[in-house]
Amino acid sequence: MSVSFAELRARGGDKPLFSAECSTRVVLDHVTRKWGVLVIVVLSGGTHRWGELRREVDGISEKMLGTTLRTLEADGFVHRETFGTVPPRVEYSLTNRGRELAERLLPLVEWVADYVGETVED
Amino acid sequence: MSVSFAELRARGGDKPLFSAECSTRVVLDHVTRKWGVLVIVVLSGGTHRWGELRREVDGISEKMLGTTLRTLEADGFVHRETFGTVPPRVEYSLTNRGRELAERLLPLVEWVADYVGETVED
Repeated sequence: MSVSFAELRARGGDKPLFSAECSTRVVLDHVTRKWGVLVIVVLSGGTHRWGELRREVDGISEKMLGTTLRTLEADGFVHRETFGTVPPRVEYSLTNRGRELAERLLPLVEWVADYVGETVED
Repeated sequence: MSVSFAELRARGGDKPLFSAECSTRVVLDHVTRKWGVLVIVVLSGGTHRWGELRREVDGISEKMLGTTLRTLEADGFVHRETFGTVPPRVEYSLTNRGRELAERLLPLVEWVADYVGETVED
C-alpha cells in the first residue's frame, strides 16, 4: 500500500504515466470496467460455468458476458476450458495472473461495499 | 488482502452481493470508470487546478473531466474549492474518503502497469 502517485509517475521515465497511448490504460480500462470487475471477483470464488456466471453477475446480458470473458481471456486473466461432452460443457476460471489481479480488486470492492453501507440508506 | 469472495458474499446476508439494484455497484462503477480511476490517482498526488488535471489525465475532454469531477464530488471523494479571485481559481483535492479510496486504487494501478510492462511490447 506504500506506492504513491509520484513513484508511479517516476517509473514512466519521460513518458507521462497516463498518456493517451499508454498500454497500461487499455488493460486498466478492461479490468476496471463495470462488468470486468464483477466477473473477476465472482471467478475469484472458483471455477464457474456460463449459466452460473450469469446468475452471480445479476443483470449482465448474454452478449456483454461473452464480450467481457473474451476480453479478459485475451488479456490473460481468464482461462476457458471446453469439455467434449454433449452438449459441450464450458468452464471459466482465473489464471494465475487473474488471481493476482483479484487480490488487488477485492480490497477495493470490499471498501466500496463498506463505504456504501455507511452512507447510503437501503 | 485477506478478504475472499465468500466473505464478501456472506456480508450481504440474503441479498446477492452483485444484485442489479445494489448501491455498491453504482459507486463501484463510478470509482472504477476509466476516467474516475485516473482522476483519483492523479489527485492522490495533491491538489490540482482544472488545467493541471486536464494535462495529467491525457486525452480527457473538458466535458468528461467536468462530469467525472461532479460524480466523484457527489459521492464524497473529491472536494472542490473556489477562491474569490478574478478570474475565480478552482482547486480540486481528495477528501479523507477519497484518500482511503486512492490507497486501494494505487496498488491495482501499479500492478496493472507492471503487468503490462511484462507482456506488451512498446
